Amino acid sequence: MKVSSSVFQSAAKSIDKYAQFVPKSGVFPKGYEVASLASGVKKNGALDLGIIRNINKSKKSSAAAVFTTNRFKAAPVQFSRKVLQSRSGEGIDAIVVNSGCANAVTGELGLQDAEKVAGQVNKLVGNSDSTLLMSTGVIGQRLQLEKITAGIDRLFEEKKFSTDFDGWLNLSKSICTTDTFPKLISSKFALSDGTEYTLTGMAKGAGMICPNMATLLGFIVTDLPIKTSVLQPLLSGAVNRSFNCISVDGDMSTNDTICMIANGAIDTTVIDENSPDFEKVKDQVTEFAKQLAQLVVRDGEGATKFVTVNVKNSAEFKDAKIIAETISNSMLVKSALYGQDANWGRILCAIGYSKLENLASLDESKINVSFVATDDSTPRELKLIVNGVPQFDIDETRASEILKLPDLEVLVDLGTGSEECQFWTCDLSHEYVTINGDYRS
Amino acid sequence: MKVSSSVFQSAAKSIDKYAQFVPKSGVFPKGYEVASLASGVKKNGALDLGIIRNINKSKKSSAAAVFTTNRFKAAPVQFSRKVLQSRSGEGIDAIVVNSGCANAVTGELGLQDAEKVAGQVNKLVGNSDSTLLMSTGVIGQRLQLEKITAGIDRLFEEKKFSTDFDGWLNLSKSICTTDTFPKLISSKFALSDGTEYTLTGMAKGAGMICPNMATLLGFIVTDLPIKTSVLQPLLSGAVNRSFNCISVDGDMSTNDTICMIANGAIDTTVIDENSPDFEKVKDQVTEFAKQLAQLVVRDGEGATKFVTVNVKNSAEFKDAKIIAETISNSMLVKSALYGQDANWGRILCAIGYSKLENLASLDESKINVSFVATDDSTPRELKLIVNGVPQFDIDETRASEILKLPDLEVLVDLGTGSEECQFWTCDLSHEYVTINGDYRS
Repeated sequence: MKVSSSVFQSAAKSIDKYAQFVPKSGVFPKGYEVASLASGVKKNGALDLGIIRNINKSKKSSAAAVFTTNRFKAAPVQFSRKVLQSRSGEGIDAIVVNSGCANAVTGELGLQDAEKVAGQVNKLVGNSDSTLLMSTGVIGQRLQLEKITAGIDRLFEEKKFSTDFDGWLNLSKSICTTDTFPKLISSKFALSDGTEYTLTGMAKGAGMICPNMATLLGFIVTDLPIKTSVLQPLLSGAVNRSFNCISVDGDMSTNDTICMIANGAIDTTVIDENSPDFEKVKDQVTEFAKQLAQLVVRDGEGATKFVTVNVKNSAEFKDAKIIAETISNSMLVKSALYGQDANWGRILCAIGYSKLENLASLDESKINVSFVATDDSTPRELKLIVNGVPQFDIDETRASEILKLPDLEVLVDLGTGSEECQFWTCDLSHEYVTINGDYRS
Repeated sequence: MKVSSSVFQSAAKSIDKYAQFVPKSGVFPKGYEVASLASGVKKNGALDLGIIRNINKSKKSSAAAVFTTNRFKAAPVQFSRKVLQSRSGEGIDAIVVNSGCANAVTGELGLQDAEKVAGQVNKLVGNSDSTLLMSTGVIGQRLQLEKITAGIDRLFEEKKFSTDFDGWLNLSKSICTTDTFPKLISSKFALSDGTEYTLTGMAKGAGMICPNMATLLGFIVTDLPIKTSVLQPLLSGAVNRSFNCISVDGDMSTNDTICMIANGAIDTTVIDENSPDFEKVKDQVTEFAKQLAQLVVRDGEGATKFVTVNVKNSAEFKDAKIIAETISNSMLVKSALYGQDANWGRILCAIGYSKLENLASLDESKINVSFVATDDSTPRELKLIVNGVPQFDIDETRASEILKLPDLEVLVDLGTGSEECQFWTCDLSHEYVTINGDYRS
């Protein structure tokens, strides 16, 4: 690795997270090449421009994306949506990611800048309308177009594209802003007939101080062939159970984008809704997306704890999710977790003000709430509320042990059905306030 | 004042707030008597039990209340709702407030405890079904019934009821938990014919560490006669523009209650929807409720700033309110305000993810966002976004001056209509995390 990792060095406290969560090797899907460099947009000389190319020339390639629902959609979001709509049924050849400038709230000129960048890459890969864009960083500033176009030319001219581990790791670094570690995962999976395929994913997360943004970017690429009409719902479903089930502070940005390419470089039958392996692939992609999304929470600003909020046995999935999200976003719950306070009242209170779609999902007399240890210590489950009744003889020593764990679970059993939603959140620490409050002062 | 104010002394930093916001005298409405004492529920010997009696025996008395929409309604909420429903068209004679124990999540036994307390007071005032209850404090604990019933007996036997300023102030203290100052306001108003009437209000606020609760309690009493069928919508409307327009952390408790008595002790025509003064009274009550609600925000846990979020020129009031609330609850916006960071991106971002009911309320190209100074300094308004376009030449010195003010306004002009909503919030400080995180540690 030649590239400076200065962007990570400032987060001295998080060096352990880097060691713990960043892989040291990996296998990657066939038919992709990646490249990244420091274009000069980031003043500290860190990586800030990356491209992933789909170089598989089979016609089996497809692409899909899930974009922010924020009304103020950044230029790259508007642009990429249009590309995917215009190419329905066909894959795309390149994703360009730049960090340091989000090209958000930049109006018509910002959209023109986006078109120029994509146009340049389309030309270089020899295919029109085949490039998606992702940007993250400062909002309300225009792209430094000269630096970015020069950077793109260098990537192609100097043949910086590679397929090796360092290449992928550097790409995952180039999309970071205030992340304290890059988020890169890669795994092999098998279909029923033994055919192996690979999923690789990367994301950038909850670093929002640079200076105006909270952006979640991620992409997943695979060499499996998946029919386009299937890939979009498959990705949407996976995102619904992963990136839409994480919370650092409940804010949703103008640039949030998760996209997926399935280039079909593996020689096997295209997966569609009638494939015997359809459900299997769907589950594998969903589980993979969950892993990636969880890394974003682990790097939550100031986070000292990784908390799984598991709401099970609900009459409706939607309501399980609304309850899980409400608990996960409660400042009172998050503060209590930081303070290692077994404050079941705040959890119950958050459940009670969740805006349910079906009121029957919640029956006050059927609810059970527990803390669950995620290490090997026992008893694993500490019951706080049983059938709506608070437990007054809670083992405070055990409560304190569980709450000291860096990973723990809040388990809510609604007892009204069989649907389940897991949500991942972090605690609210002094450090969060420092990071987000003291930026200019 | 003989009563210990030890509950307030711990908040040394807030002594200035006490001096600034607690009145030193007041006029109070006719036909009410108040009393309070330390029943022993609060371990520090502070006031924790209070009663307000409506002693006007005219038949013109009416009462109304707005209760929490939390699914886990505390026993006093369930009980008081039932009383008001059963007495439609008639006023009530007493409100009993106890602090230190919320009688929440206490099931059937908690409800029986509430009934006992109310039954005792009904007997003492000689009227059945005429007592409302409010409780705040620890949840999941039963009332210490002996202390409370003994306290109520003492209040009546020892003739502790009074109509003077100290009596009202002590009552306002007896409903506090972790509040750093009691919230009491009182004003005279005039009808068109010159008839004077009085509104007195008190509230307890955003003290949520004792140890499991966030509770908002408040009541407003007046000597004006108001028809019951009018009083309920009038109070609901006022609450919708006041107590429902404040946010400390977005959590809503099991006990939240705002109630109002209009006992008709002033000899004038009963106000109903056809009275020439109906709109005037409605506005006066609403403005009064706003003042009271704002005191709750000023005492927000750890708050260093009082921020008015004013969303104007919206196509719909509901959407103006949703946007104002979303900005007010954004942890990123609140942290930036604490850090005195002119972070318009976070404000715009929060506007963009507000869950509007009518999408036409927001037009990205018509939006204007400003910081507004609330002191006499100029220029009062600092434009951050004009017709959707960020202003890149913001006067940073002036921005910094405005953001240093303890009171400031975030002004959002949607430009899509003529509806307006004001919301009041505070910043998110290290102190908030300390108060809410370090309770047990």
